[in-house]
Amino acid sequence: MQLHPPSPSLLSTLPLFIMSHREVKVAVAGATGTVGQRFIVLLSAHPYFRISSLNASARSAGKAYKDAVKWKQPVPIPKVVLDMTVKQCRPEDFGDAEIVFSGLDSDAAGDIEEALRKAEYAVFSNAGNFRRDPLVPLVVPLVNPSHFAIVPHQKASLDLKKGFIITNANCSTTGLSIPLHALEKAFGPLETIMVTTMQAISGAGYPGVPSLDILDNVVPYIGKEEEKMEWELTKILGGLSDDQSAFEMHSKYPMKVSAACNRVPVLDGHLECASVRFARRPPPSPQQVKDALRAFYSEVQKLGCPSAPEQAIFVHEEPDRPQPRLDRYFQNGSGVSVGRVRECPVLDIKFVCLVNNVSIGAATSSIINAEYAVAKNIV
Amino acid sequence: MQLHPPSPSLLSTLPLFIMSHREVKVAVAGATGTVGQRFIVLLSAHPYFRISSLNASARSAGKAYKDAVKWKQPVPIPKVVLDMTVKQCRPEDFGDAEIVFSGLDSDAAGDIEEALRKAEYAVFSNAGNFRRDPLVPLVVPLVNPSHFAIVPHQKASLDLKKGFIITNANCSTTGLSIPLHALEKAFGPLETIMVTTMQAISGAGYPGVPSLDILDNVVPYIGKEEEKMEWELTKILGGLSDDQSAFEMHSKYPMKVSAACNRVPVLDGHLECASVRFARRPPPSPQQVKDALRAFYSEVQKLGCPSAPEQAIFVHEEPDRPQPRLDRYFQNGSGVSVGRVRECPVLDIKFVCLVNNVSIGAATSSIINAEYAVAKNIV
Amino acid sequence: MQLHPPSPSLLSTLPLFIMSHREVKVAVAGATGTVGQRFIVLLSAHPYFRISSLNASARSAGKAYKDAVKWKQPVPIPKVVLDMTVKQCRPEDFGDAEIVFSGLDSDAAGDIEEALRKAEYAVFSNAGNFRRDPLVPLVVPLVNPSHFAIVPHQKASLDLKKGFIITNANCSTTGLSIPLHALEKAFGPLETIMVTTMQAISGAGYPGVPSLDILDNVVPYIGKEEEKMEWELTKILGGLSDDQSAFEMHSKYPMKVSAACNRVPVLDGHLECASVRFARRPPPSPQQVKDALRAFYSEVQKLGCPSAPEQAIFVHEEPDRPQPRLDRYFQNGSGVSVGRVRECPVLDIKFVCLVNNVSIGAATSSIINAEYAVAKNIV
Amino acid sequence: MQLHPPSPSLLSTLPLFIMSHREVKVAVAGATGTVGQRFIVLLSAHPYFRISSLNASARSAGKAYKDAVKWKQPVPIPKVVLDMTVKQCRPEDFGDAEIVFSGLDSDAAGDIEEALRKAEYAVFSNAGNFRRDPLVPLVVPLVNPSHFAIVPHQKASLDLKKGFIITNANCSTTGLSIPLHALEKAFGPLETIMVTTMQAISGAGYPGVPSLDILDNVVPYIGKEEEKMEWELTKILGGLSDDQSAFEMHSKYPMKVSAACNRVPVLDGHLECASVRFARRPPPSPQQVKDALRAFYSEVQKLGCPSAPEQAIFVHEEPDRPQPRLDRYFQNGSGVSVGRVRECPVLDIKFVCLVNNVSIGAATSSIINAEYAVAKNIV
Repeated sequence: MQLHPPSPSLLSTLPLFIMSHREVKVAVAGATGTVGQRFIVLLSAHPYFRISSLNASARSAGKAYKDAVKWKQPVPIPKVVLDMTVKQCRPEDFGDAEIVFSGLDSDAAGDIEEALRKAEYAVFSNAGNFRRDPLVPLVVPLVNPSHFAIVPHQKASLDLKKGFIITNANCSTTGLSIPLHALEKAFGPLETIMVTTMQAISGAGYPGVPSLDILDNVVPYIGKEEEKMEWELTKILGGLSDDQSAFEMHSKYPMKVSAACNRVPVLDGHLECASVRFARRPPPSPQQVKDALRAFYSEVQKLGCPSAPEQAIFVHEEPDRPQPRLDRYFQNGSGVSVGRVRECPVLDIKFVCLVNNVSIGAATSSIINAEYAVAKNIV
Repeated sequence: MQLHPPSPSLLSTLPLFIMSHREVKVAVAGATGTVGQRFIVLLSAHPYFRISSLNASARSAGKAYKDAVKWKQPVPIPKVVLDMTVKQCRPEDFGDAEIVFSGLDSDAAGDIEEALRKAEYAVFSNAGNFRRDPLVPLVVPLVNPSHFAIVPHQKASLDLKKGFIITNANCSTTGLSIPLHALEKAFGPLETIMVTTMQAISGAGYPGVPSLDILDNVVPYIGKEEEKMEWELTKILGGLSDDQSAFEMHSKYPMKVSAACNRVPVLDGHLECASVRFARRPPPSPQQVKDALRAFYSEVQKLGCPSAPEQAIFVHEEPDRPQPRLDRYFQNGSGVSVGRVRECPVLDIKFVCLVNNVSIGAATSSIINAEYAVAKNIV
Repeated sequence: MQLHPPSPSLLSTLPLFIMSHREVKVAVAGATGTVGQRFIVLLSAHPYFRISSLNASARSAGKAYKDAVKWKQPVPIPKVVLDMTVKQCRPEDFGDAEIVFSGLDSDAAGDIEEALRKAEYAVFSNAGNFRRDPLVPLVVPLVNPSHFAIVPHQKASLDLKKGFIITNANCSTTGLSIPLHALEKAFGPLETIMVTTMQAISGAGYPGVPSLDILDNVVPYIGKEEEKMEWELTKILGGLSDDQSAFEMHSKYPMKVSAACNRVPVLDGHLECASVRFARRPPPSPQQVKDALRAFYSEVQKLGCPSAPEQAIFVHEEPDRPQPRLDRYFQNGSGVSVGRVRECPVLDIKFVCLVNNVSIGAATSSIINAEYAVAKNIV
Repeated sequence: MQLHPPSPSLLSTLPLFIMSHREVKVAVAGATGTVGQRFIVLLSAHPYFRISSLNASARSAGKAYKDAVKWKQPVPIPKVVLDMTVKQCRPEDFGDAEIVFSGLDSDAAGDIEEALRKAEYAVFSNAGNFRRDPLVPLVVPLVNPSHFAIVPHQKASLDLKKGFIITNANCSTTGLSIPLHALEKAFGPLETIMVTTMQAISGAGYPGVPSLDILDNVVPYIGKEEEKMEWELTKILGGLSDDQSAFEMHSKYPMKVSAACNRVPVLDGHLECASVRFARRPPPSPQQVKDALRAFYSEVQKLGCPSAPEQAIFVHEEPDRPQPRLDRYFQNGSGVSVGRVRECPVLDIKFVCLVNNVSIGAATSSIINAEYAVAKNIV
């Protein structure tokens, strides 16, 4: 039934954009881990990023990548990295890379990313360590690349010339922030958001969730996930201060968010049942909401970032979509799917949203963020 | 890992109650279907209900039960029905049964249940056909057996002496109504209820959900389920008119309910993430809510109805419970489990609730309803 | 974790072959069914087959394809068929197609395919109806395209000029026949084959296996599957009579086959644990077997059939491969994966084989068979 | 669909045997682990075993059991152990227990069990460490309790009065050995056994198999499992030397065994597809095989061991049984289910066998072994 979902390697074969970019050397920190492997798959087919360095723990250093990694992707290890020698994660190990993509675990990410920034690398991190840092943008590329405007202040505060850190958001936050942003753009501020998530096991990494805990089961708890969603959404959907030195945290229009997060026996794709209330009265109708979601077009798309989706939000009319297994490969996992847009008897509008947690919910966001930085000459 | 959940047959071996009840002859309509099979398992171990008639379609009639049924339960066919001859579903086929338990499909249930009532049978139905009937109580036995008070009016309106129909509620409604009722009893009316369900495949019957639709997937839609939850809760949680001739529909304290219903790859047990707002300000604290849920004791328990749970609501303190696979056999499936009681940033209190959809969410409710009727001499 | 498996549309973008073929018009019978949908996905990206007719039941006839179909593929409906009008399955409804691909259910396939052949169409069928017909080749394209040699006799016997029927094999048979054929080619006849299959739910079609039957379960039985494997393997692996008018059924070297077939909760990909004994003594070593499997190269590959895999058999050295989820997209599902080649304490060699039941195990085989026929001017 | 499987606590309420046994104090080593938890559930309801000591690692020692354990069973922690203080696993920590049940992990089991034996405890171990020891019986209680006859030799060799070790077998070996023994008892020695297993995830313990490895997947490899099955079966099915000082290893009638072991997404219950050849020609017919399996009655049953199944082997006539989910609770998990008994085109007879790997495949076997030892005054 499940037929060949679209391939990332298509990115390199299709004439998605014409502008000829200079080649940019990039490193992958945490290259042997799950997120690192995904960075490698995506970057090995990238039109202008070239992997110049693979960095991991001292245990892996010195080995050929193919010997250091326990490869868990359903596509073979890209040839370009097969025999590359893995190096450690000290700043001096990253050579002439301009950008470091960090797929490090959070227990290592803090120190290493800080040291890399200090050594003047541009760090695009999937780790959570700096998400709450008042100098570090938390960027969902389809939502708030405008937050890159704080980068000069970040550099200045730390007395750096080129070094900075950009983080992307938690996977479930990322997915919901995209339609919410589209709605705010069209209809003004949201007042209230309630969301219940049904999250895939791949969100917990590997080995992650024991099969005995999740087969024929749902676990109604994911450590710190609800707090992340409730807090990160305010940072992402909020603006910057006028002098572009602080995050406004949606404080002009206080936004209440309540999340309930569950783990379900699904491999990839987080499904989220959301309900929202707009400040504007009367609120938009379901049809207006659907029209606005379909019309949404983000800056990274306008700029032709090659990993950005052609269409950011697909709105289903079928009553039973989106579904993780059928819709997670939409736009190669770089867009989100929305369905069941209808009136909510309590708030204004309820809908269902699906995000591919391992694509736009993780490595793909870091890569689009970096593409944006390149396009805007921030890197 | 999964060890021997408790057995229904224990019900008959344990001294759950002392009063000696007269034996009551009961029939099972739709005896060969999934719900009918469950009625038979439960009734065959019942202390005073005796199965005197098995009724099904004309296709099954005339056969021994063991030859007519495609048995799908993990316990063997009870010996007492093995060779019983299946009869049709015309009123004259039900013999001297006093009570008819109906596990009929909704396409057949309407006409047959009506005819049985007219023939002066007491019908306890798991089908949905009469749930919205203004004369028929929709009874969750742990919540609103008080609605039996409309039965005299039902009989009088139809010029009947003994015949009446009682329905039990939709499985997901049943599960949520129990803690909601406990909260209203302790803290007064609820104003707002938001709930997202993750429902087991057994809720769709057999063959029900195709495996290709649900393996590695979630389906964010169950036909008419949201409407049922939103409407049924107002009937169940509301009272009766003063003259006990009409349902009040929670109209004195209008209650807004918003439900989002999902099908997940779980065999048995519906998990529900709920959030509620009380009329009373300030609302109760999470600790007060937990205390009230634990203290809840319903009338059917006080009356010693043998199929009622010893404890109606179990409140978990562990952060990751209840879970369908671990908790669905609590109280042999006749109680509900609640966990994660905490403040809601939007409404007042949020929590997770688990209901065994094939036990208290279905046949067990009908049986406790009938036990209540026997205890109160309504039958 | 599961990343973008390779896409069939790549077939059209990659320079897999250079020869310029004439365009061939093809029809899909049973176009709205599961197999029909897969034919359409594959054919819509085909280098020289052009879909000229979509045929289905009278119920669908007259509608636009997009309105007639309940699309169940994880890629959108190909644009080329979106608005094509569906026609019935009478011979006069197939227009100027030269080839008809049949994804019909077996209850309809017999009469329709026979009528199409009589109407001088070349029919490539995935249905089982004609597999045991003494005039009809049962062709696994990587194994026995040589059986096309009986086509002249088939036509002559029925007094036809162009009409003939080719069937492909049962999905689990197909998968095993490929390594078995490679072994016979390298080491001579096999005497004994024992195989236990673990088959995906997609093999049963849609709605197919109820989820209540297979979640947290294995069903050790698939109707008629063991008989099919035991019989079909002798037809496929056997030769033709000298005058190319009959199937030899491996009768020169009688071959005993014993199959045990199980359904497991896997979406796509049949895994088979096989053990074999060779006639030749001493038998080949595991290393020789692996070398032979890797070296295997079939005629359809030599001819450059565009849907044939680059590599027919991938041999894993890891102890725990192949696995359905990780390896079913190998070669876009057109090759098979073998692993755990080792000595058998009872027979000679045991190994594990994985076949993508919905690709080479079904529609892909029909298409390669048709490509072979085009290449050999049989069509 | 899945209704309340039978409960172990029934064991204590039902008059399964009349003989009045003396109470026997028992300890559980590895009490906080998965197997230890199962020992506790079973022993807490045992008619004459009384838990007098819970022993675990130094980390758990000193704590109340309820605080030391991460309980993973679907029944609550038995009250009798809730507040028992956990002790270490040094011999002096086991007090006046006569029997030690060992659920220790294999990395700790070797030294501890050896020390306990030396300290004159009777050790019944579920660990694999001593299974190949030439002095230690490997006992499947329904098959070879006769191997207890080597215990005097074990004691004498080690100069011990009461101390000895008995192990039970690997879970998949246990399941297959029961019908194989029944067949040998009825029809004489088996010459050849081929078996492919589909094993539940609970066989790998907790956390065990990562969900990302097994959801929508089969893993065709379980480390050392095939070697265990192939070797253990010869020890279990073989006899003792005439002087009862050595295991005969089925050497009088050499037996070839070939196993292929797979992990499937099933919680509990190993399914095994077996095919066998008898020495006796002609071999028994399928009907004779079914009759013999049904008639099989073992010594532990005759002795009235309270945890032994009433019926050891249930033979299904339905074509699609046994199935793990429907049949794993047969006889409370202490018996095995066999189905699909039919002729094998290669060997003589093939059939399917289901064993509850966490009951008779693990702790239940140790307990029945101990019951046998008590009944025979070996302990």
